[in-house]
Amino acid sequence: MRAAVLTGLGQVELQDRPEPDARPGWVVVAVESASLCGTDVHQYDGRIDTPFPRVPGHDFAGRVESVGEGVEESWVGRPVAVKPSLPCNDCPECDSGKPFDCKKKKLIGLWSDGCMTEKVAVPVVNLIPRPDGVEAWQASLLEPLAVGLNTVDRLRIILGESVVVLGQGPIGLALTRLCALSGAGKLIVTDAREAPFTVSRAFGATDCVNVAEVDAKQAVLDLTDGVGADIVIETSGFPASSAMVLDAVRKEGKVAHIGWANDLPPLPVIPIMAKTLTVFGIGGNGGRGQYERALELVRSGRFDLDPLVTHRFSLDDVAQAFETAASKADGAIKVVVTP
Amino acid sequence: MRAAVLTGLGQVELQDRPEPDARPGWVVVAVESASLCGTDVHQYDGRIDTPFPRVPGHDFAGRVESVGEGVEESWVGRPVAVKPSLPCNDCPECDSGKPFDCKKKKLIGLWSDGCMTEKVAVPVVNLIPRPDGVEAWQASLLEPLAVGLNTVDRLRIILGESVVVLGQGPIGLALTRLCALSGAGKLIVTDAREAPFTVSRAFGATDCVNVAEVDAKQAVLDLTDGVGADIVIETSGFPASSAMVLDAVRKEGKVAHIGWANDLPPLPVIPIMAKTLTVFGIGGNGGRGQYERALELVRSGRFDLDPLVTHRFSLDDVAQAFETAASKADGAIKVVVTP
Amino acid sequence: MRAAVLTGLGQVELQDRPEPDARPGWVVVAVESASLCGTDVHQYDGRIDTPFPRVPGHDFAGRVESVGEGVEESWVGRPVAVKPSLPCNDCPECDSGKPFDCKKKKLIGLWSDGCMTEKVAVPVVNLIPRPDGVEAWQASLLEPLAVGLNTVDRLRIILGESVVVLGQGPIGLALTRLCALSGAGKLIVTDAREAPFTVSRAFGATDCVNVAEVDAKQAVLDLTDGVGADIVIETSGFPASSAMVLDAVRKEGKVAHIGWANDLPPLPVIPIMAKTLTVFGIGGNGGRGQYERALELVRSGRFDLDPLVTHRFSLDDVAQAFETAASKADGAIKVVVTP
Amino acid sequence: MRAAVLTGLGQVELQDRPEPDARPGWVVVAVESASLCGTDVHQYDGRIDTPFPRVPGHDFAGRVESVGEGVEESWVGRPVAVKPSLPCNDCPECDSGKPFDCKKKKLIGLWSDGCMTEKVAVPVVNLIPRPDGVEAWQASLLEPLAVGLNTVDRLRIILGESVVVLGQGPIGLALTRLCALSGAGKLIVTDAREAPFTVSRAFGATDCVNVAEVDAKQAVLDLTDGVGADIVIETSGFPASSAMVLDAVRKEGKVAHIGWANDLPPLPVIPIMAKTLTVFGIGGNGGRGQYERALELVRSGRFDLDPLVTHRFSLDDVAQAFETAASKADGAIKVVVTP
Repeated sequence: MRAAVLTGLGQVELQDRPEPDARPGWVVVAVESASLCGTDVHQYDGRIDTPFPRVPGHDFAGRVESVGEGVEESWVGRPVAVKPSLPCNDCPECDSGKPFDCKKKKLIGLWSDGCMTEKVAVPVVNLIPRPDGVEAWQASLLEPLAVGLNTVDRLRIILGESVVVLGQGPIGLALTRLCALSGAGKLIVTDAREAPFTVSRAFGATDCVNVAEVDAKQAVLDLTDGVGADIVIETSGFPASSAMVLDAVRKEGKVAHIGWANDLPPLPVIPIMAKTLTVFGIGGNGGRGQYERALELVRSGRFDLDPLVTHRFSLDDVAQAFETAASKADGAIKVVVTP
Repeated sequence: MRAAVLTGLGQVELQDRPEPDARPGWVVVAVESASLCGTDVHQYDGRIDTPFPRVPGHDFAGRVESVGEGVEESWVGRPVAVKPSLPCNDCPECDSGKPFDCKKKKLIGLWSDGCMTEKVAVPVVNLIPRPDGVEAWQASLLEPLAVGLNTVDRLRIILGESVVVLGQGPIGLALTRLCALSGAGKLIVTDAREAPFTVSRAFGATDCVNVAEVDAKQAVLDLTDGVGADIVIETSGFPASSAMVLDAVRKEGKVAHIGWANDLPPLPVIPIMAKTLTVFGIGGNGGRGQYERALELVRSGRFDLDPLVTHRFSLDDVAQAFETAASKADGAIKVVVTP
Repeated sequence: MRAAVLTGLGQVELQDRPEPDARPGWVVVAVESASLCGTDVHQYDGRIDTPFPRVPGHDFAGRVESVGEGVEESWVGRPVAVKPSLPCNDCPECDSGKPFDCKKKKLIGLWSDGCMTEKVAVPVVNLIPRPDGVEAWQASLLEPLAVGLNTVDRLRIILGESVVVLGQGPIGLALTRLCALSGAGKLIVTDAREAPFTVSRAFGATDCVNVAEVDAKQAVLDLTDGVGADIVIETSGFPASSAMVLDAVRKEGKVAHIGWANDLPPLPVIPIMAKTLTVFGIGGNGGRGQYERALELVRSGRFDLDPLVTHRFSLDDVAQAFETAASKADGAIKVVVTP
Repeated sequence: MRAAVLTGLGQVELQDRPEPDARPGWVVVAVESASLCGTDVHQYDGRIDTPFPRVPGHDFAGRVESVGEGVEESWVGRPVAVKPSLPCNDCPECDSGKPFDCKKKKLIGLWSDGCMTEKVAVPVVNLIPRPDGVEAWQASLLEPLAVGLNTVDRLRIILGESVVVLGQGPIGLALTRLCALSGAGKLIVTDAREAPFTVSRAFGATDCVNVAEVDAKQAVLDLTDGVGADIVIETSGFPASSAMVLDAVRKEGKVAHIGWANDLPPLPVIPIMAKTLTVFGIGGNGGRGQYERALELVRSGRFDLDPLVTHRFSLDDVAQAFETAASKADGAIKVVVTP
C-alpha cells in the first residue's frame, strides 16, 4: 500500500509499504481521511525530534477492515474515529486492564508509524464508533476539539466570564468555539495573521487582536476595563505570547497553558502569587470521553468544522500538503489528506 | 402619587399615596418600568399570603430622584436596576456592615410596599447602575435571569451535558436560555401550553414536550437513549412535574428544584440514593453579582428579553395587567407595567 | 466445603457445598475472614428480599488459591481484599472492557452466593492486593470505609466545618472517623444506644446525642448557636432520623443520605429550596480507588478498626453470629466470622 | 507611649510616640501581644524595602480601648484579634461599602506604622472578637494560620492524598498542621535545619527531610513509590526549593506556591503541561473568614500554637527580639513580644 514517509527534515515521500495485520486485540482500519496537525509539521520542520524514517500522522478516521483474535467480528465495516495514543502495555494501569488510564501513552505517527497511509493497525480500545451524520473528514479533525474539551473541562467557565485565547491556529480556534459554547462573555482572541480571524468571529470571538499590529497586552487591558481577563488560554507556543499571559489575566483569575515549544520562557512566580492565580497545564487530548463528546458536538452542528479546513490533498500529493501546512501559505489552517 | 394597591384577593385598584422620603442611607427611585412576577400573581390569587392592603411588585428599574443622608449626591439622575430584597437590619451580618449577606432579607411588594407605583424608597446598597444600552423595561425583567444564574452557577454544566427544564414560565424560559449559553447539549423543555415553545426554541431548546399531550417522563427517556438526562431543572411548581424529576434524571445526575408551591409532593429518598444523585435547592435570586451579570447578558445581546414580553400596560390599567398575568390569557409570559 | 446458608427468614445453617472453580478471568479466594453487614442482617430479618437458599456475605478477605485461564499465575498465594460487586457483563461499559464502570453491578451474597464459606470465586478485577501490615480480619471490614470515603469525597469538607452524623452503626462510625480525618470541626453524632459512643469519641466525635433521651434536632441547634450544622449525614435508615435532616442543617448547608430502608419518609421540597441546600444521595461503596484508600488508612494506622469489632465467631457458629448482629446484643457493632 | 522603630537596616530602637486617636469608624486597640513574622524580619534585614522610620509589626491582639464616631460603644474593653491589612478607601469595593473585598489592601507595619508598640488605631472592620479560651499571645499568631487556611481551602485535599510541605518556618509549620487536619495521608516536610522537625512531627508530619543532608527531590520520590506527591506546597522562598517543586509532584498533581522572595527562579512551562499540573499562587491571608476559623481551631485545641513559640521578649527588649528572629538562633521559630 502507499504510505507517506518522513525520511528526514523537510523530506516526505510516497513509498510502498506492506499492509498491516491485526494482532490479538487489535484491528486494521482503512483510512478514509487524515488531517495534519502541528505535531506532524514540527516533525517535518525539526522542532520535534523524530526517528526517521517514519510514517507521520495521528488524527484520522476510517472504517474497520479486519479484526484480530478476541475482537468482536461486528466491528468489521463500522465507521470509526481513532484515539491516537497507544497504551504502553507496560505499566500498572495497562496491567490491570485499564489501558485508557495508561500514563505513558505513545502517540502514533511519532513513536510508531502513523496514519498518512491506506491502512493502520490499532488496538480495539482506541476505536470510537462514528455516529450517523459525521463524515470521515470531520472525524479526522477531532484532536483539537478533544484537547480543547480537556481544557474547558478544567477551567469550568462561569457564564459570562471574559476569556482570552492567545493564538488562533487549529487548537486556538477550537478553544474559541468551545469557550463560546461554554458561556464565555467577552471572548478576545489574538494572532499574528488576519486570516484566521474570519473563522474566529464565526466561532464566537467578540474581539480579534492582531499582535503584529498592536500591543496585545494593552489591548486586552483596554477591553477589560484595565483589570485583565477572568481566563487566559495560551495556545500559540510563541515565547512573546506566553510571556504576556500573567499580565493579561485579572487578579484571582485562571490561566491555561497548552501551546508547546522548546523555547517557551518560564513563568515568573511572584505574579502568580501576588495575583492569586490558578495555572492549569494542559498536556493532551484527554480520554475517550473527550473524543465521544467532540463527535457529538460535530454531529449536532454545534461545532461546524467546515471553516477550519482550508486545504485538501490526496495522499499522492502529501509533499504539497506538508509544504502548505508548514508554510501556512494561503491562510492555511487545517490541511486534510485523503488516501 | 398613583399606586396600585392589592386590597384583597383578586382586587387591585389605583390609589393616591404620599411620596416616599429618602432616609439616611436610602434613595428614592422614580419607577420607569416594572414587571409582574409569579409572586405578585400569587399574592393576587391567594396562593401566597399577603397582608392587605399592599402595593405589590419588586422587579423594576428607574432613575434615582433623591438621596438620603450619607449617600453620594452623584447617584441623583442615574439609571438603575434595583435588587428587590431589603436587608433585615437586625442580624449579625447586617450589624457588621454586610447587608448583602443578610440571611433574612425581606422582599418588597410582599413584606413592605413595592414598585407598582411612581416612586419607591430603597437602601442605596440595593441599587445596580444600569449601563448604556440597557433600557428601563429590560432592567425591570432581571429577576428571572438572576434566579437562573444562581442555578447554573451551582449546576456547573459541563459542555455537552443534556438538560431538561420542566416548565416554561418566565423562570423556566430564562433557564432555557442560560443553559443554552452555558453549554447544554440536548436541551429538552416541557410545558402544558404550546405558546411558550416558540420562545423556548428561539432561546436554544432542542426538544419541546407538551405535557398535556404526551407522557413527559417517557419522552425524556426516549430522547436520552433510555438513560435519562444529565441534569433536570424543575421550575413549574406543579406536583406532577416535581414528581417526575427523579425519573427523568440519569444515574449520578444532578437535579435543581426552583418551582415553589405549597402543594409540591415530597421527594422519595431511595431513588436519590440508588441513583447517586445530587439535588440542589434554589431559593432565590442570588446576590448583587447575579444582577450585574444579568445586566451584562442583556447589554451584550446574549440574552434577548424581547420574546418574553407579551403584554405592556400603563399603571392606570394595572387591574388589567394583573388579570392578564393571572389568567395567562393570549399566551402571556411577561407583563410589563409602565408608570 | 462448609457454607452458611440462609434457608428462610431468620434461618441460617451450615451445609456442605462443592468447592468453586475458577472460570477464565476469575480466581478462587480462600476466605480468611468475613464480616457481617447490615445487608446480611436485613436478608436474615426480611427487610431485604432474598432468593433463598443463599450463602450470604460480601465483605471479606483471604488469599488467592487458584486462577482461571487468562489470569496471571503470580496471583496465587497473594493476600487480597475483595470488592464485593460483580460486573453484569451485559452493558456497554462491561462490553468495552471497563467492568469497574458497570452501572448494574450485583452484590455477591445477595444476587449470587457470597463469602460466609471457605472458598469463593470472583473475577480477578475484583481483587485488591492486601499490603503488608493489614491482616485478614481488617481487610474484611473495608466496605463501611469505602462507603464512607465515597461520601466524604463528594461532601468535600472544608477545614473546620461542623458535621452531624445521624446513626452510629458501622457506617455511621466509619463516617465519624473519616469526617474527623477530613477536617470536621464540631463533630456531633447521634444514636439510640449509648454503647457505640465510646467508639464515636475515640474516632473523634466532639458531642454524642442519645436520641432516646433528648430531642436530637434541638440538641444539634443548641450545639451550633441555633443555626444548624454545615453538613448533616444520615446513616441510620430510621424514619425519625431522616425526618430531622433538613432541620438540623444550616442554610446553604449540605446533606448526605446513606441510610437505606423501605420505610424512609420522603424529603419535603420547600425547605431544600428555602435553605438553598445541596443533597447528596450516596448509593454504594464507590470504586476500586475507595477500597485501595481504605486499605491505606488501615495500614497507616489512621483508621483503627479494632474498636469496631465487638464479636468474633467461627463459621461453625454462624447462627450465633447472625443472632448477635441482628439483635445488637452486648453492644454489638461489627461481627467477624472466621472459617 | 513606647514604640519600636525601625530606623534603618538592622536598626530597631525604642522611641516615645504620641498615642493614637480613634477616627470615625476606627478604634484604638491596646496591644497585649505581638509576634514577629518573616515580613518584619525582611524589613529589618533589607529583603523588603521599607520607608524608614517605621513602627513594624502586623500580627497582634489586644483589647479595644476607645472607639471613634459611628462605632458601637460596646466594643470598648472587648478582647480582639486584628486583621492586619487596611482597606485602601479608594477603590470601587471600598466605595461600595465592602472594604473587606478591597484589592489594594495595605499591610500595617509596612505601609503605615504597626503594632510593635502599646496602642494601635485600626478600622473597626478589622477587628475579630476573641472568644473565651483564646489568650492574647495565641491571637497574635493567627496570620500563618490564615495564610495556611487560604491555601488548604484552594487545594481541597482529598482524604489520604500525599502532601509535601517545603520549608518549616512558621507558615510551613502551620501548613503541616492544617494539611494533617485536612486529611493528608503521607505528609512529608523539608527544611535545612533539624530544629523545627520536632514541631513538624507533633503537628502530624510523617517524614522529615533535611535538605542540608539529603537530595530532597530524590527523597520525596523514594517516599512516593517513584511517582511524586499528590500535592507539593512551597513555603520556603528559597530558590533551590522552588526549583524542585515540579519534580516532586506527581502527574496530574497540584502545586501551591507561597514562599515569597525576589530571587525565586521562574517555573518552566513544559513540565506544567507535560504533567498536567494545577499551580495555585497563594498571595495572602484571605479574608475575615480565615481569621475567624483560625481562632476556632486554636480555641478548640485542634491547633496547638504552643510548640511554635520559642522565644518571648518584652517590648523593652525588642532589639533582641529582632536579632533572634533574624538569626534564627536557638532554633527560633516564632518570637512573641509583649508590651
